Amino acid sequence: MPKIVDHDERRLELVDATWRIIAEVGIEGATMRQIALEAGFSNGALKPYFESKDTLLTFAFTHVLNKTNERIEQAVAGRNGLVALRAFCLEVLPLDQERIREARIVIPFWQRAASDTDKRDLYRESLQQWHGVLRGFLADARVAGQVNARVDDEILASQILNMLLGAQVTIVLGDVPDFTRVQRQLDDFLLLITATPT
Amino acid sequence: MPKIVDHDERRLELVDATWRIIAEVGIEGATMRQIALEAGFSNGALKPYFESKDTLLTFAFTHVLNKTNERIEQAVAGRNGLVALRAFCLEVLPLDQERIREARIVIPFWQRAASDTDKRDLYRESLQQWHGVLRGFLADARVAGQVNARVDDEILASQILNMLLGAQVTIVLGDVPDFTRVQRQLDDFLLLITATPT
Repeated sequence: MPKIVDHDERRLELVDATWRIIAEVGIEGATMRQIALEAGFSNGALKPYFESKDTLLTFAFTHVLNKTNERIEQAVAGRNGLVALRAFCLEVLPLDQERIREARIVIPFWQRAASDTDKRDLYRESLQQWHGVLRGFLADARVAGQVNARVDDEILASQILNMLLGAQVTIVLGDVPDFTRVQRQLDDFLLLITATPT
Repeated sequence: MPKIVDHDERRLELVDATWRIIAEVGIEGATMRQIALEAGFSNGALKPYFESKDTLLTFAFTHVLNKTNERIEQAVAGRNGLVALRAFCLEVLPLDQERIREARIVIPFWQRAASDTDKRDLYRESLQQWHGVLRGFLADARVAGQVNARVDDEILASQILNMLLGAQVTIVLGDVPDFTRVQRQLDDFLLLITATPT
């Protein structure tokens, strides 16, 4: 079915060319037409591929998620335990303008997902996948004697995930982002779970 | 200026009667007219008090924030240190259906605030206020020997805040909420910062 593949490829191109515009102006702030024009396409370029802004947002979210997961894959390759865990978190945390833009896609997606079952299922799946990966790294780190906290890995993974999501909110809505401080929040959490309690 | 006061009071009544409807259907999902009708008001009841859904959402957020802060005030009254810190967090965490509804107002507000300076300022102020309160409790807890983590209170407060915000996302978008597990994430974080590292 080569026609379908072409359609999908074109859609990917369009999402790649427009997601940053959506991140900047907000999904409320512009019409499909304006988003198309800003990206250098014709008026009606998006409509045949995305039936609504809502669909466009879902594709933008999936695109951003894929990009993050590709970065994670590269960052953790050949690493394990606490080093891999840290590398994972550094790819999710909003530590540069590009990742802040990504967070500006994720937050509107949360909002839509709160009252849309398909979006919620998509998000839940990605969260569960990340939770599993984090648990795996924690288990390795535990075996290697790198994690000594008297807290279940399952709970630690949830705490880390929630911190990563919360950091997206506080950075997007905060003052001028202080990337050193965000990174320190991560490193100091790793310090907490590494330390041997008496 | 009694007229203005009346106007404000009526607005508060209207917000109190409609915010749960907004939380359930989502701010996208309904018109001002539908929200008014569902709350038992006439078609045009909201329009004179809120110029747009956007304004209604800001009032709903402020209402939810005030409710949360009132609960916090009661919960921490006469307490200090780690006990007050825990009480604070328990009022913010989505630990019952009402607080999940509150989170369903907060998340769309984040989305709008990401591209609206006034909303962002409002949110930033509330975050800074909470951060200050958390730091105060941590400082007390430190003096009382309840917190022994080798991490600055300023960083601990940010970690806690981010965890609280992240929990709102994971509970609103997650499966059937497991309140015991959410509470355990908090208690186990307190365990991490209480433990004396060797």
